[in-house]
Amino acid sequence: MLSFESDYVEGAHERILQRLIETNLEQLSGYGQDCYCARAKEKIRQACECPGAEIFFLTGGTQTNMITIDALLKSYEGVAAAKTGHVSTHEAGAVEFHGHKVLELPEHQGKICAKELEAFLKSFWQDENHEHMVFPGMVYISHPTEYGTLYSREELKELSSVCRSYEIPLYLDGARLGYGLMSRDTDVTLPVIAEYCDVFYIGGTKVGALCGEALVFTKDNMPGHFTAVVKQHGALLAKGRLLGIQFDTLFTDGLYFEISRHAIEMAGILKEGLDKKGYRRYLESPTNQQFVILENEKYQALKKEAAMGFWEKPDPGHTVVRLATSWATRREDVEAFLALL
Amino acid sequence: MLSFESDYVEGAHERILQRLIETNLEQLSGYGQDCYCARAKEKIRQACECPGAEIFFLTGGTQTNMITIDALLKSYEGVAAAKTGHVSTHEAGAVEFHGHKVLELPEHQGKICAKELEAFLKSFWQDENHEHMVFPGMVYISHPTEYGTLYSREELKELSSVCRSYEIPLYLDGARLGYGLMSRDTDVTLPVIAEYCDVFYIGGTKVGALCGEALVFTKDNMPGHFTAVVKQHGALLAKGRLLGIQFDTLFTDGLYFEISRHAIEMAGILKEGLDKKGYRRYLESPTNQQFVILENEKYQALKKEAAMGFWEKPDPGHTVVRLATSWATRREDVEAFLALL
Amino acid sequence: MLSFESDYVEGAHERILQRLIETNLEQLSGYGQDCYCARAKEKIRQACECPGAEIFFLTGGTQTNMITIDALLKSYEGVAAAKTGHVSTHEAGAVEFHGHKVLELPEHQGKICAKELEAFLKSFWQDENHEHMVFPGMVYISHPTEYGTLYSREELKELSSVCRSYEIPLYLDGARLGYGLMSRDTDVTLPVIAEYCDVFYIGGTKVGALCGEALVFTKDNMPGHFTAVVKQHGALLAKGRLLGIQFDTLFTDGLYFEISRHAIEMAGILKEGLDKKGYRRYLESPTNQQFVILENEKYQALKKEAAMGFWEKPDPGHTVVRLATSWATRREDVEAFLALL
Amino acid sequence: MLSFESDYVEGAHERILQRLIETNLEQLSGYGQDCYCARAKEKIRQACECPGAEIFFLTGGTQTNMITIDALLKSYEGVAAAKTGHVSTHEAGAVEFHGHKVLELPEHQGKICAKELEAFLKSFWQDENHEHMVFPGMVYISHPTEYGTLYSREELKELSSVCRSYEIPLYLDGARLGYGLMSRDTDVTLPVIAEYCDVFYIGGTKVGALCGEALVFTKDNMPGHFTAVVKQHGALLAKGRLLGIQFDTLFTDGLYFEISRHAIEMAGILKEGLDKKGYRRYLESPTNQQFVILENEKYQALKKEAAMGFWEKPDPGHTVVRLATSWATRREDVEAFLALL
Repeated sequence: MLSFESDYVEGAHERILQRLIETNLEQLSGYGQDCYCARAKEKIRQACECPGAEIFFLTGGTQTNMITIDALLKSYEGVAAAKTGHVSTHEAGAVEFHGHKVLELPEHQGKICAKELEAFLKSFWQDENHEHMVFPGMVYISHPTEYGTLYSREELKELSSVCRSYEIPLYLDGARLGYGLMSRDTDVTLPVIAEYCDVFYIGGTKVGALCGEALVFTKDNMPGHFTAVVKQHGALLAKGRLLGIQFDTLFTDGLYFEISRHAIEMAGILKEGLDKKGYRRYLESPTNQQFVILENEKYQALKKEAAMGFWEKPDPGHTVVRLATSWATRREDVEAFLALL
Repeated sequence: MLSFESDYVEGAHERILQRLIETNLEQLSGYGQDCYCARAKEKIRQACECPGAEIFFLTGGTQTNMITIDALLKSYEGVAAAKTGHVSTHEAGAVEFHGHKVLELPEHQGKICAKELEAFLKSFWQDENHEHMVFPGMVYISHPTEYGTLYSREELKELSSVCRSYEIPLYLDGARLGYGLMSRDTDVTLPVIAEYCDVFYIGGTKVGALCGEALVFTKDNMPGHFTAVVKQHGALLAKGRLLGIQFDTLFTDGLYFEISRHAIEMAGILKEGLDKKGYRRYLESPTNQQFVILENEKYQALKKEAAMGFWEKPDPGHTVVRLATSWATRREDVEAFLALL
Repeated sequence: MLSFESDYVEGAHERILQRLIETNLEQLSGYGQDCYCARAKEKIRQACECPGAEIFFLTGGTQTNMITIDALLKSYEGVAAAKTGHVSTHEAGAVEFHGHKVLELPEHQGKICAKELEAFLKSFWQDENHEHMVFPGMVYISHPTEYGTLYSREELKELSSVCRSYEIPLYLDGARLGYGLMSRDTDVTLPVIAEYCDVFYIGGTKVGALCGEALVFTKDNMPGHFTAVVKQHGALLAKGRLLGIQFDTLFTDGLYFEISRHAIEMAGILKEGLDKKGYRRYLESPTNQQFVILENEKYQALKKEAAMGFWEKPDPGHTVVRLATSWATRREDVEAFLALL
Repeated sequence: MLSFESDYVEGAHERILQRLIETNLEQLSGYGQDCYCARAKEKIRQACECPGAEIFFLTGGTQTNMITIDALLKSYEGVAAAKTGHVSTHEAGAVEFHGHKVLELPEHQGKICAKELEAFLKSFWQDENHEHMVFPGMVYISHPTEYGTLYSREELKELSSVCRSYEIPLYLDGARLGYGLMSRDTDVTLPVIAEYCDVFYIGGTKVGALCGEALVFTKDNMPGHFTAVVKQHGALLAKGRLLGIQFDTLFTDGLYFEISRHAIEMAGILKEGLDKKGYRRYLESPTNQQFVILENEKYQALKKEAAMGFWEKPDPGHTVVRLATSWATRREDVEAFLALL
């Protein structure tokens, strides 16, 4: 059975496992105070060209989103996000569970638009009753988005500019950041993100790690006593080494970028093959997630041989599926899948 | 440098790492829906002799405590626990952060006493103003306790009986459960715990795993939609396999018990050595944590060669230290440490 | 200066003040355990023709909404409401602050539609990923809505039927309930509401009281230990008599209905006058809130002589204002206002 | 039936009711933006000799405590309070419900001691693991305490000094503040409190109002957007006038102090009478709450003629009762009660 269902169906990159074994019996301090966490942070700072960045390792995306949002917002503030943002839709209400409203903005293939954001913020502050409303206290974007789309450097700059004029942080969810950075159609780099975003995270779980996200505060803005904040959210690993060693490995010799590029190449072969066979794509994604429109019969037949992500039914006769490649995708599997079409 | 500072300074048992490698490229469902989680659960059910047990894997102790307590309590209820309980003292207020008071009971070397618990519960319900107070909604115990001490089977039975008469669950924090079960001075087994406790967890992080705790509901009492509850607490791992594979390995061929027994043997050698050299113990612990009273000078000298956990100063001239052995402790290290005394 | 800005600019109906004076030195139990609370509850049960109704008095609308929603929902559930519902827009995020998402439904002049609600619920339960989403755990409607509109008996029945088939409660926010019940264009009565809604509240603050809302559980479904729940939300008045005496007075000799009818009559005169003078209404409201479209110049001129609620700008040249009558509105003030037009 | 059960069994001082009637039909802005709130604030500032004080009116004590504590603390901080403090014992866990631990300090007849507070704070900051503990973020005291006792000016100064050296606010719960200020045995005045405390509230509910507490921030330290914070806790009254008019009246012509002095006089007569008849007091209270030790038979007999507050059983043969006088206590009732002894 082939699988293109998601980018987290395999374990971890072999170099990570190897390093876990090599370091296994070293006696290290707990709670992220070990040398591997320190090294990983230093390497990430360099990759971001942001020497003052403060970094914290967490285990998963929803956890990272909820803690970051909860730590940055005042109690009466909410987070503005696309209606389709992961925090709005697929985190079981973790943001609200921690007391904050997700203020939904219109989405354009998963992206928000600086003009609409500005109009929303302006309208809030002009409203005489705004003390009875939820204050917009930060902005959340995902990059790549839930639809695989990317912001351009110019778009990030515009969003950043709006946020700064309203003095609220811009937060970027990079669960699949590697796949965005290695896209052929992007002018956004890690240093660009570090410049325009106040906080962002570099996704590990979907890009070669067993688990782990690296949360980066770029503007000397990590909330005070952040360890205590993380602890009270139940997110402080006793063996912080597990995260440190993984990110140290991912940011050694460019591994994170190398394995991300592989996923993009595999997605490229997939797209080309689909195009050749005349399949319509649901939208144009420059990253590792591809959305294809299949006739229902074709979908049913294919499902028996390849796991795919069901996305939606655009009309009664068709099904949109999501096909995800990853660091672990094998070229022969892509070719075998294309052969089934 | 020797280290007896804690039981989480090394990585994971080698068999676990080996299994991670062997299974690494298998394509598995996410969020704990994989075959290794299923197998691990089945093996735990058998070890508990509790065929109906419902099990959920989480990443750490504080996380497990806060989710379990939050999920089992109504909003107006609190959890009764020893004043020295981990939830009372060293979880950064995670229980209160999630809305619940820790109702502190007197402690006896870390343990609570059924009679005092009963008196507390009775007094609450007799108080005319109890609608203005925090309702005791469950009882938390740790086994081994934070002082390394253990409940006897009879004591568990008594606590359980009090809880049942007041219709509140008894929850056992087993962060170091293996070391309790393999103590030479215990009549408590996993099936005994499964019988008397309504919920408990089997600690992995401190007993051979990279991370992970197995939360066990023994009485058909897992809260509905528990996956959503875990998700909204930010605790649902995308690659649930990481936890499943670890617990599957730990509960194959009795590995969990075997490595726990090793820690107890090492603690035994340590105790014997300390006794021979005339060191006083702070209290009598039958598990892997040993508490020793050192003269301050001795403490300062020793610290240069061996990491130990500072515990407290019982008087100006002495220091109590905690020495922890673990699944990974080497006999030669214990002997080297004793030679330093 | 005339004022039609809102329905809470005056104090309380004089009969209420008189009763406060008459009973002032009676020594009564605190926390709602007094005889006036008991009498008021009994009168409300009768007015609702719901002998088993359980009733709790609270001080304000947002407080009542947030406590009811928080008490009825499980932690992973949210409340479905119109995008324009008071809980969605003007309660400073009190629902989210207490941990729950407001699941926004399309609105039709403030109302939701049973078909769309059913489609939403169906779609949630059919989604394979619903454990990662917020569960719809109850439905919130306001009656009259924020636009002054009313549900028909048939519409309430349909909403109730959808809720029952999904086993979730239907909750009605009756901040202005009197003005809805006394509308000339309604077939909805208190017993109808008590039949179709699982919980609702009868607004006092906007209908003749100094403060106070009567929360009514109609189906033997008041959450256990509700006093403790209210207390922990900071909403339990020591002198519960303040609320009991007010509702006892409002439900004696039909005062609540009588003063509500007065507001409707005043609104009728206002509407008629506006129509005669050719003013367009923004929407057709059968209750005490009227929405009128004014030319900007007219609006600016009028503002100097009469306070009105700014609503929105439908186009650059016009302004929509809300004019609210109430139990305290004087006929001569309505006439004076019309004379200004 | 006589009643000395509590100080909130009657309604409000007649001058308050009279003012409610006089102002009843004035059309006033909502949410505390009316002229009576403004006047009341100004009068309180003058009484406190604190021209910069920022004041907010809330409805009850638990509400005021929970909002103040929640608004002043960071998420990882708790509030230090006497074990017997109202927030520790009788607020249904409202502080914990809003996410914060009450850090219990030893109590001395309801009071905490500056030395013990300092030792606690010092010990916290010296603990190497304090990032895993709850940070002490503010200090709560009640004055009078739950036992009717009072801090001296010197004691307040010492507590204040400790708080300032640790840069945490000192908060004083003045639910019965008038009765403390008018005690014959105090050197503490409103300006003294305003000097040494960072925040405090002047209790209205127990001192002549129907409901209402005046929360005073003395050091330019009201949290930003406090109206929104109050709103999201469900505590913003639409008709803020209800609170403004009451406090305006209480602080006109010294009414608050005058009626408080009356309660103290009545307590004096009560104490003298008890002493004469040889009754032992449980502790020495200089305020309106008196604690008397009765033989059980006497208690049972008295209960039939006078409501008293049950406090505790110090031994099997005796009962401690609390007798509370108030602004409304009639001298003839005190005398009638004494005659029963």
